[in-house]
Amino acid sequence: MNYIRGMERDKSYRQILKWGDKREAEVDHHMVALIKEKFGLTDADFSEKYLPGTEEVKLEKPSLLKPAQAEFLKSVSGGENVLTDDFHRAQYSCGKFYGELLDLRLNQVPDPPDAVVSPRSHDEVVKIVGFCNDERIAIIPVGGQSSVTGALRAPHGGIALDLTEHINRILKINSVNKTVTVQAGMYGPALEEELNRHGYTCGHFPQSFEYSTVGGWISARGAGQASTGYGKIEDMVVALTAVTPAGVIETRDFPRTAQGWDLFRLFAGAEGTLGVITGVTLHIFNHAPQNTTLAAFIFRSFEQAVETMRRMIQSEYGRPHLFRISDPEETDIAFRTSGFDGTFADRVLKRLGFKTGSRCLMFVTVEGEKDYAGFVMGKIKKSARAGKGMYIGAGPVRKWLAQRYSSAYLRDPLMDLGIMSDTLETAVTWENLLKVWRAAHEYVRRRPKAFMMIHISHVYENGANLYFTFLTPMEKGNERKDFLQFHSGLVDTIVEHGGSISHHHGVGRVLAPWMEGHLGRNSMELMKAVKRHLDPNNIMNPGGMLGLL
Amino acid sequence: MNYIRGMERDKSYRQILKWGDKREAEVDHHMVALIKEKFGLTDADFSEKYLPGTEEVKLEKPSLLKPAQAEFLKSVSGGENVLTDDFHRAQYSCGKFYGELLDLRLNQVPDPPDAVVSPRSHDEVVKIVGFCNDERIAIIPVGGQSSVTGALRAPHGGIALDLTEHINRILKINSVNKTVTVQAGMYGPALEEELNRHGYTCGHFPQSFEYSTVGGWISARGAGQASTGYGKIEDMVVALTAVTPAGVIETRDFPRTAQGWDLFRLFAGAEGTLGVITGVTLHIFNHAPQNTTLAAFIFRSFEQAVETMRRMIQSEYGRPHLFRISDPEETDIAFRTSGFDGTFADRVLKRLGFKTGSRCLMFVTVEGEKDYAGFVMGKIKKSARAGKGMYIGAGPVRKWLAQRYSSAYLRDPLMDLGIMSDTLETAVTWENLLKVWRAAHEYVRRRPKAFMMIHISHVYENGANLYFTFLTPMEKGNERKDFLQFHSGLVDTIVEHGGSISHHHGVGRVLAPWMEGHLGRNSMELMKAVKRHLDPNNIMNPGGMLGLL
Repeated sequence: MNYIRGMERDKSYRQILKWGDKREAEVDHHMVALIKEKFGLTDADFSEKYLPGTEEVKLEKPSLLKPAQAEFLKSVSGGENVLTDDFHRAQYSCGKFYGELLDLRLNQVPDPPDAVVSPRSHDEVVKIVGFCNDERIAIIPVGGQSSVTGALRAPHGGIALDLTEHINRILKINSVNKTVTVQAGMYGPALEEELNRHGYTCGHFPQSFEYSTVGGWISARGAGQASTGYGKIEDMVVALTAVTPAGVIETRDFPRTAQGWDLFRLFAGAEGTLGVITGVTLHIFNHAPQNTTLAAFIFRSFEQAVETMRRMIQSEYGRPHLFRISDPEETDIAFRTSGFDGTFADRVLKRLGFKTGSRCLMFVTVEGEKDYAGFVMGKIKKSARAGKGMYIGAGPVRKWLAQRYSSAYLRDPLMDLGIMSDTLETAVTWENLLKVWRAAHEYVRRRPKAFMMIHISHVYENGANLYFTFLTPMEKGNERKDFLQFHSGLVDTIVEHGGSISHHHGVGRVLAPWMEGHLGRNSMELMKAVKRHLDPNNIMNPGGMLGLL
Repeated sequence: MNYIRGMERDKSYRQILKWGDKREAEVDHHMVALIKEKFGLTDADFSEKYLPGTEEVKLEKPSLLKPAQAEFLKSVSGGENVLTDDFHRAQYSCGKFYGELLDLRLNQVPDPPDAVVSPRSHDEVVKIVGFCNDERIAIIPVGGQSSVTGALRAPHGGIALDLTEHINRILKINSVNKTVTVQAGMYGPALEEELNRHGYTCGHFPQSFEYSTVGGWISARGAGQASTGYGKIEDMVVALTAVTPAGVIETRDFPRTAQGWDLFRLFAGAEGTLGVITGVTLHIFNHAPQNTTLAAFIFRSFEQAVETMRRMIQSEYGRPHLFRISDPEETDIAFRTSGFDGTFADRVLKRLGFKTGSRCLMFVTVEGEKDYAGFVMGKIKKSARAGKGMYIGAGPVRKWLAQRYSSAYLRDPLMDLGIMSDTLETAVTWENLLKVWRAAHEYVRRRPKAFMMIHISHVYENGANLYFTFLTPMEKGNERKDFLQFHSGLVDTIVEHGGSISHHHGVGRVLAPWMEGHLGRNSMELMKAVKRHLDPNNIMNPGGMLGLL
């Protein structure tokens, strides 16, 4: 099921670093023009691909797995499911964190595992976890590898436990309880396709949808693009099964209980540090895309748009599913790269006071039964008007949805142009949202050639998610240090102004250094106590994950 | 703030055992007639109150608090906030579990604390918990004492830590984030009154509302009567502060994060075993009772009503707030005791096939903005018709709401008549719901003179709560053993057929023996590990709570 294994066109770093189907995407010409303008660059700067990573993968670290250990793993899962060659060890050691992509372009793989093992069943996972616990071999559970937090690095070596190859099927669609029981290594599209055939949808569509798995969604506590309506993945979990060094934890599918706390919640957000999630039961939803209502609105300022969004979500008339605001910077880019800038419609908007540099787009969908979706959208439109927003049709949302997973492809060609580009995100209360938004922009503006777009997505009664995308030319020859410094300063800025470390990307190894300061020492000690109990020998994704051990 | 302290009319067991405002309620004459008929009793059986508990409280166990310990506690919280007299030690040692009421009527208080301490602030709680941890003194956090699970017993003595006396104020109503920050010892009505003044409601109305506190709601993971719309209390928690022997855990008010698991969730359902919740931030809702739409429906059978309820909640057109079905037994009692039986309307219903012994009532409210509540109720009515239910007006729901907290008063006068009456409840998937319902009725029918009513309340996409109320004459002279045996058999029956131990009453000491068999050993060990970390000396509500230690 892994989208690349066995299909490698070559064994280069580039095969590993590129997003998704590995196609050679190009940056749209509007965007190139913008980059040249913003950063004072010329075509000469783009004459050849920067750090293309086209060399063949060669690891410095040999696999440290002992022959007897390799033999045992092969005896459990079959020889073809235990790989120790350089390319696969490199491939499974990284996700899509900008720092990892940069390393690969610099022909570096700092923390490869000793082997990649693809167990064929839950029972094989139990055997492997037991064996690795006895032998003190680290285990890094691997799903779709779209992590942007360094979650797959293996600083202690050990094995990358690939769940996608075999543990990837739907076990039961339960139409009485309206749930699906699915194995953790199943990719989003395969799950969704099968659910659609039965009239359901999973409701969870992160940007990484095509290259992420159910187990990964839960481990990282992801959020789909329509999470305002459907909830984050942890809201959809009904029950799960996890294999830990201390035994199998299997929770049950009751709708809600009052018998201690819900143990499944410890595994949502544990990022592989407590055990291996092998199966999960999720809520599912009715699949009726023909009922979805869509609307785009434009506002004269970010502040007005945010205030209106807050009023909408705090009104009690049902809620949107997709719910987003692009800030003025992101809105301007959208208008420029779509060719809208300078059209007649654009001139009309400007005359009405919706001006470049301050105007903001809001996108809304409402799903559900046809008349319900219509009713709620009617209320949304009324609220938008009351908030001085103008309805500009469903078209822009439809267009956005058509390319909803494609912007993940943009980063690689930008890097080919020598442009550093990364995303961060934070959950923040309404009270602090504008503060964080302003501070983040100010921070980026302090770097001579840098540009940031921010949007709001994933909206709650008491706050929302702010999502940051920045672009700036790499400091050539000092790419890594420069990036880490710039990135770290942005995280500091967000956290200091009241944002959380993460809303849906997770923490991993990249954001771990912020955990204790953010959560407090007592909370960290509590998390560590849970870790110690379930994984006393620290074999589960060790080496800095979540700041645990 | 405690509703009785200082106001005792006498110091009898009866003052402690009676529900709520301690009034002498009577059983309605319809109900008395029914009891006589069902159980073959006559007026002679009711000539005097059975086990009235009117004697003055006298404890066998002296307070074991050492003088120096008492002095320290007084130095922290003031002499008037440390009580060691028999009556108060007895009063604070029990909630409203039937077994406890029976003990009191038998002039028994098996597990009194050594003292009742009412700290005046969070800081005093910190000092007391630290001191008690050093001195190995047990602490039992006490709120409104409406527990029905033996959660307040002090088998290891120690102190009942009363939060209601002083730690009972709203700290902040945040209308930007739409949240309230409130101290844990605040009672429901005081909270709601203040919120209403600001245009909000807490949305949480358990039957114990008038005599329960915010901290108790969270500790027991309670559910309000309108939880289908507003969620259970754990869904409303945004953040909380808890004082544990391992230090203060303070979580933050982000709308949602992906930075490990949400630690506040460990305290929801911990029933005082991990620490003392002192403050909490909750979501609040718009207070607009004038918008609420109400409807009662009648169905020809329980099966039809349940199937229709499931279709309603699994439709995606908004959801009810209050959502209930009374099974045929409960429906019949409602019709008889309300005087509806035998009226012209009743005869019409019967002619239409809604017959005694099989017909069922469904109650629905929808809250929110006026047109939203109207829209959703329109969809509900359509679904009810499609499910062969008949709309019978809003009146029955209005009537039910007017006495929504009063049935808790019924148990005491029933016990005065020598009738054993208790309630149990379970969360169960749709798949298992009818199975549990049938098995529970069959179990009760095996007892010669016994009668059970069941309703569904608290409804979810994948299942619902079944709520059981049974009545049967006490076995005089063997009241306690007979009750425990009968009660335990009913729990067994529920759990064996797929029900959970509890949906919203909690586990306490009464249901603790079922925990390990139900959750599995590995899950219990995980819960115990959390307990050991936060409370290494086992001072927090020790002695069997939740099956922990």
